[in-house]
Amino acid sequence: MSPEQSVAAANQRFYDAFEARDLDAMAAVWERSDRATVTHPGWPTLRGWAKVAGSWDAIFKGTPYIQFILTDTHVNVAGDLAWVSLNENILQGEGADSTVAALNVFAQREGDWRMVVHHGSPVAAS
Amino acid sequence: MSPEQSVAAANQRFYDAFEARDLDAMAAVWERSDRATVTHPGWPTLRGWAKVAGSWDAIFKGTPYIQFILTDTHVNVAGDLAWVSLNENILQGEGADSTVAALNVFAQREGDWRMVVHHGSPVAAS
Repeated sequence: MSPEQSVAAANQRFYDAFEARDLDAMAAVWERSDRATVTHPGWPTLRGWAKVAGSWDAIFKGTPYIQFILTDTHVNVAGDLAWVSLNENILQGEGADSTVAALNVFAQREGDWRMVVHHGSPVAAS
Repeated sequence: MSPEQSVAAANQRFYDAFEARDLDAMAAVWERSDRATVTHPGWPTLRGWAKVAGSWDAIFKGTPYIQFILTDTHVNVAGDLAWVSLNENILQGEGADSTVAALNVFAQREGDWRMVVHHGSPVAAS
């Protein structure tokens, strides 16, 4: 696999874990370090793996159903770092659908690409 | 200067250009390439330097005054790529103050760090 394909696969595992609301699978996607950060739509940035993990735990518990349709995905690799930008078209049923513009940053160590940043921002309905 | 200091300086030039609403200074901050993207708060992601530049032009024309107080700035460098996460505490006067969680990605070429991604998301008032 090319680096771009490896990053795209890691990015897909992130959304698979999110849809499954599986905290173990989500933990396997992330670099569990102090530099890991997550910015959920409307939230302040949370820094460090402990806070990142806590946020996923809270979100998974509060989310009975979620499905992602990913569009306009672009992968960029530069050495041991990569970023992916894409649109998350989110289906949650009963008029709760939304679009999030996401930026995911991955870092590579020994061929293993791990997420270090997930930043999602709400796109205003036009 | 260390790479971290060079990235921090490039990040500061971005906010200086934004406060000055100076399109030439903003253009000097960016990598003017197809992979350049900007996500303004509430906006969809715009891809490629032409669209990025157009958005700054529109924002500068529509912004009579803006001042940034930057907090919780963290710089991470990995080879020729770096990312900066920070809070933009934005003063625009007359009750229009707001906070934006920002993620800025920079790429280095021959010691020159250029912005390739600016992603800002609104932080809901608590």
